[in-house]
Amino acid sequence: MAIKAEILAVGTELLMGQIANTNAQYISSRLPDVGIGVYYHSVVGDNRERLRNELSKALSRSGLIIMTGGLGPTRDDLTKETVAEVLNRRLVRDQESFERLKAFFERFKRPMTENSIKQAYLPEGAIIIRNNHGTAPGCIIEEKDRIVVMLPGPPPEMKAMFEETVIPYLEERSGSRIVSRFLGIFGIGESAMEDMIKDLIENQSNPTIATYVKEGEIALRITARCPKDKQPEDIIAPIEAEIRRRLGVKVYSSENKGLSEVVGEMLLNKGTTIAIAESCTGGLISSRLTELPGISRIFNRGIISYSNQSKMENLNVMQETLDRFGAVSRETAIEMAAGIKKISGTDLGLAVTGIAGPDGGTQEKPVGLVFIGLSHKDEAECKELRLWGTRNRIRNVTALHAFDMVRRKLIALGN
Amino acid sequence: MAIKAEILAVGTELLMGQIANTNAQYISSRLPDVGIGVYYHSVVGDNRERLRNELSKALSRSGLIIMTGGLGPTRDDLTKETVAEVLNRRLVRDQESFERLKAFFERFKRPMTENSIKQAYLPEGAIIIRNNHGTAPGCIIEEKDRIVVMLPGPPPEMKAMFEETVIPYLEERSGSRIVSRFLGIFGIGESAMEDMIKDLIENQSNPTIATYVKEGEIALRITARCPKDKQPEDIIAPIEAEIRRRLGVKVYSSENKGLSEVVGEMLLNKGTTIAIAESCTGGLISSRLTELPGISRIFNRGIISYSNQSKMENLNVMQETLDRFGAVSRETAIEMAAGIKKISGTDLGLAVTGIAGPDGGTQEKPVGLVFIGLSHKDEAECKELRLWGTRNRIRNVTALHAFDMVRRKLIALGN
Repeated sequence: MAIKAEILAVGTELLMGQIANTNAQYISSRLPDVGIGVYYHSVVGDNRERLRNELSKALSRSGLIIMTGGLGPTRDDLTKETVAEVLNRRLVRDQESFERLKAFFERFKRPMTENSIKQAYLPEGAIIIRNNHGTAPGCIIEEKDRIVVMLPGPPPEMKAMFEETVIPYLEERSGSRIVSRFLGIFGIGESAMEDMIKDLIENQSNPTIATYVKEGEIALRITARCPKDKQPEDIIAPIEAEIRRRLGVKVYSSENKGLSEVVGEMLLNKGTTIAIAESCTGGLISSRLTELPGISRIFNRGIISYSNQSKMENLNVMQETLDRFGAVSRETAIEMAAGIKKISGTDLGLAVTGIAGPDGGTQEKPVGLVFIGLSHKDEAECKELRLWGTRNRIRNVTALHAFDMVRRKLIALGN
Repeated sequence: MAIKAEILAVGTELLMGQIANTNAQYISSRLPDVGIGVYYHSVVGDNRERLRNELSKALSRSGLIIMTGGLGPTRDDLTKETVAEVLNRRLVRDQESFERLKAFFERFKRPMTENSIKQAYLPEGAIIIRNNHGTAPGCIIEEKDRIVVMLPGPPPEMKAMFEETVIPYLEERSGSRIVSRFLGIFGIGESAMEDMIKDLIENQSNPTIATYVKEGEIALRITARCPKDKQPEDIIAPIEAEIRRRLGVKVYSSENKGLSEVVGEMLLNKGTTIAIAESCTGGLISSRLTELPGISRIFNRGIISYSNQSKMENLNVMQETLDRFGAVSRETAIEMAAGIKKISGTDLGLAVTGIAGPDGGTQEKPVGLVFIGLSHKDEAECKELRLWGTRNRIRNVTALHAFDMVRRKLIALGN
């Protein structure tokens, strides 16, 4: 099977430029994994006539049409209605979707309005795609040699439904599959890394290697094309081993996880407890760490010591240290880390102090100057960063460095 | 003039999902400012036949076609060639573009290759758009009642050329402009809100009203079409006033700002100091608040009291309260709020305790149960929430409710 796919997004908010069409990007990045190529993206507003025309054109040239948006309860949402019209199908109430919708409204003690119920009506004969993260179900319609998939617009709902239902459905229809593994890499720039593995990137055809850069992080994607009866692992493992040999500890994950998640899991696995003192990151590090379920087993507390008063009262930083070296200094970072560890009685104390900007920088201590302290037993180490960019970038990259410092410490400590 | 526009992006990297079509978003967000509505986005790969078909279709239905990508030096870049073919024009060397290109290569001491020179060839009769940030110039072609604009794909080049040349060109041709205002709304569901303003949405043609939903928040966009000599405010103000009359305090912003930003600015404007104690949100509320530059003037500290030990030690919550009512209770939330306020000496103390899940829920205290405490002077109030969804959704929506509670308190307190 070599299906040609296109993606048709419905939503005036896209045509107004309020959001980028990240749904099309996400779906496009995933379809090749099940052997499907994407040939067109289109966006049309919440307008029945234009949607009808775009859909007819898509049906005339593509075997798989994935539509996003326009499944919600409001009058603007007319994707199902238009598809039903073009394919000459009735909209019928799907009992399970209706019950789920009813249960949803009962649980939250909200009245179930007329326009909410509309979400349980789907084209006759469609395969229903459950929405476990919102109210509007999606569906798959098989019409002669065409497949039309409808998914809701909000990215978290779209992604979950796409992964849970659409990918398995397409995999089932496909003869071979493509399997990818992401290696998360931190602590090296993109070009420096590419220099280290250039020959691997250039000489590989199966698997292929591609790099993706996020703020401060790099992901390497290893992609193997593999018949259903073969093990993709046999294709991916040797090249992964070679990359790991060259990049060493800079590779922090092979499971497409973020650095904070990896560190949280390491802490949980080892039962190493931690407490965190933050200044310039304002709670971002603790917030990231506590995204992980069950983290309360090892995360004891966080102190956001935005004022000097708080640094002294909550972290036992000495007035003298603040006076002599300033709040943004190696000495303060170390006292913060030691202080939070001692007060909390945890194994590790992590502390951050810096200047996130845009104001508050000086010649001597410019915006982007950050100190990260890490305390363990009677020792404390400190890392100095000089970052560039916006306030948000500086905060985000600081958080990544802080997590990486904890990660390397845990590796150094062994088990 | 009411030109209908569409955006046609050329580039296989978009169809592979390597990048999102942020160029289309940017252009779409700007065209309404010169009175031009966008009706379609399309993306096509670096393929001459498909590009020709897409362009012909665009020419058949739109007055303005803005194309991005495919102007570079490689063989894949075939936008100009295809446009020239469809519009039956020759590609001719533009002398100024050629000189600029030559100067560019001399400056960087690179040899000027054959395919580089291709960038200086443009369709005969085109208005050249200089590229001050890269090598490939763009152009504007006026063909009968159609306008075709070609811009390079890299966003920094595209944006600069769009702003420097395309916007002034379109403004010159346009008689009117479209102005939008966003109202941020919190504390009501989408359908309930639409019920309250249904008649306004249905009976309006200028301005128009549209709703946009984000996790837990709603935005209403009021869009006015306005001749150059009129004030858009005169068209928008009456309808905004009517919406505000009906929705009251639920409208938190008319400047397209997030709730945390609005609350941060209110606190800064009033000079009201605050300290925050978080349990289930794990630092998220403090992290959001501290995204705002200068917030250290009013934000004193945050305590992430993940353990009972921390609730007692850092916030003076009584052991008895925890034993009797539990860590997730109205009583604990109120003691946390009062505790953080007293310790910090701030005007307000905000506290959150709840069960973010996915584990840790019981029959009596299910996942999604959250208490938000707010302390001011000798009083404290508490709000109980029952939220649904993932751990992240519960944390995010909790943060929104917490900010909204502070916002309403600040309004109630007056200046």
